[in-house]
Amino acid sequence: MKIARFSVDGRERYGIVDGLSIYEVDGSIFESNPEPLSTGWGLDEVRLLPPCTPTKIVAIGLNYREHAEEFGKSLPDEPMLFLKPSTSVIGHGDRIVYPGHMSRRVDYEGELAVVIKKTARCVPPEEAGKYILGYTCFNDVTARDLQKKDIQYTRAKGFDTFAPIGPWIDTELDPMDTRVRTYLNGEKRQDAPTGDMIFDVYELVSFVSRVMTLLPGDVVATGTPSGVGRLRPGDRVEIVIDGIGSLCNSVGD
Amino acid sequence: MKIARFSVDGRERYGIVDGLSIYEVDGSIFESNPEPLSTGWGLDEVRLLPPCTPTKIVAIGLNYREHAEEFGKSLPDEPMLFLKPSTSVIGHGDRIVYPGHMSRRVDYEGELAVVIKKTARCVPPEEAGKYILGYTCFNDVTARDLQKKDIQYTRAKGFDTFAPIGPWIDTELDPMDTRVRTYLNGEKRQDAPTGDMIFDVYELVSFVSRVMTLLPGDVVATGTPSGVGRLRPGDRVEIVIDGIGSLCNSVGD
Repeated sequence: MKIARFSVDGRERYGIVDGLSIYEVDGSIFESNPEPLSTGWGLDEVRLLPPCTPTKIVAIGLNYREHAEEFGKSLPDEPMLFLKPSTSVIGHGDRIVYPGHMSRRVDYEGELAVVIKKTARCVPPEEAGKYILGYTCFNDVTARDLQKKDIQYTRAKGFDTFAPIGPWIDTELDPMDTRVRTYLNGEKRQDAPTGDMIFDVYELVSFVSRVMTLLPGDVVATGTPSGVGRLRPGDRVEIVIDGIGSLCNSVGD
Repeated sequence: MKIARFSVDGRERYGIVDGLSIYEVDGSIFESNPEPLSTGWGLDEVRLLPPCTPTKIVAIGLNYREHAEEFGKSLPDEPMLFLKPSTSVIGHGDRIVYPGHMSRRVDYEGELAVVIKKTARCVPPEEAGKYILGYTCFNDVTARDLQKKDIQYTRAKGFDTFAPIGPWIDTELDPMDTRVRTYLNGEKRQDAPTGDMIFDVYELVSFVSRVMTLLPGDVVATGTPSGVGRLRPGDRVEIVIDGIGSLCNSVGD
């Protein structure tokens, strides 16, 4: 099942995507079985919104061996956490705004994101799956120059529009058996199997939940593979994950 | 005016504190003049809650010269930002839970906190005051061992209960003409004039708003002075700011 949030006729709704159509959902997407109503639209008739409204985005640094190597970093013995604020979230089709008043170097980072289904606190890895609603595509946009200057990642990764997420949440994906690919203006720049993660999604959700309580709709972004690179105004960046779909955003001033 | 959030008769409300009484507020505390109703309680009859419900807490590292020196750090040329998640917030009288499963060294850090009144985006310092609702006491509880290990502050400062805030918001304080004091089990451990800040509160709110949009109820914690130190289970830690009041919390397992 693919769960989306969308806007049509001036109202925001949750829906289930079926082929090229989307059907409004009766009840909460966080309940066991959201039921589609008969009210449907073509996907081209609605505006897709970020598929969840996280209170926090917990992201993971250096979770692919080759990406750690491209930055000359040693491999972590525990997941390395950082936060992106909810104000940085945008959806599929929205514009990434280049913060030219502070940065001269902004990069894409394609990632698989976990969306939390129910409140998770000190969950063991073998139970973590029960707390996961599903998976979506994520772009951990980063002002690389500020990341180096500040040491702390908060400013570099916290600008408004720096957390594109979507286009929808897939609830049936096997998160350890897919690929993350990033295309910049149609050219492939990142391509890695999620099985290459150092800590898998269940270990990550478990670890984060031992630090901070995860709430329904919260996001855990699982780290980017090698091949990160520069974005410029006018660019079009696309994160594609097999079994989910494609998150596409333009870059503007 | 002192604005508090409190719970009585099983319901959460905003109120205005007057001496030893608290009066429920009619309307939003973010409007220009919240009006107290005649319904009042004694402060000892209610449970104080965190005085706001931030979507994010933006905290500032190394904003007092002597604190930077006690950590052997050079002075920053721009504010150094980090985030604490909303799940870390607790109120006056609530218990700080020692994360003994991950840390062996937890410190208090007393701070003056700014509470945002209205949506702030790219606000110049000379306009920042208009976006501030008021000021409250804040304890930036930190697992010092994990801060050193992780480099990123997220885990060290992000545990549930690691952001005590309160007891209420003072709307008339001159933020640059007061003192931050911290008492550990009744002994004074931190004591500094807020005028010693490297970046003042208006510069901080302006700077943060140039990175990420600040929303009503969001918090900017303005950094801690020298004298930080260790907390142990059983301790009682109190942040006192002249003109606001005292934020007191115990430490438990």
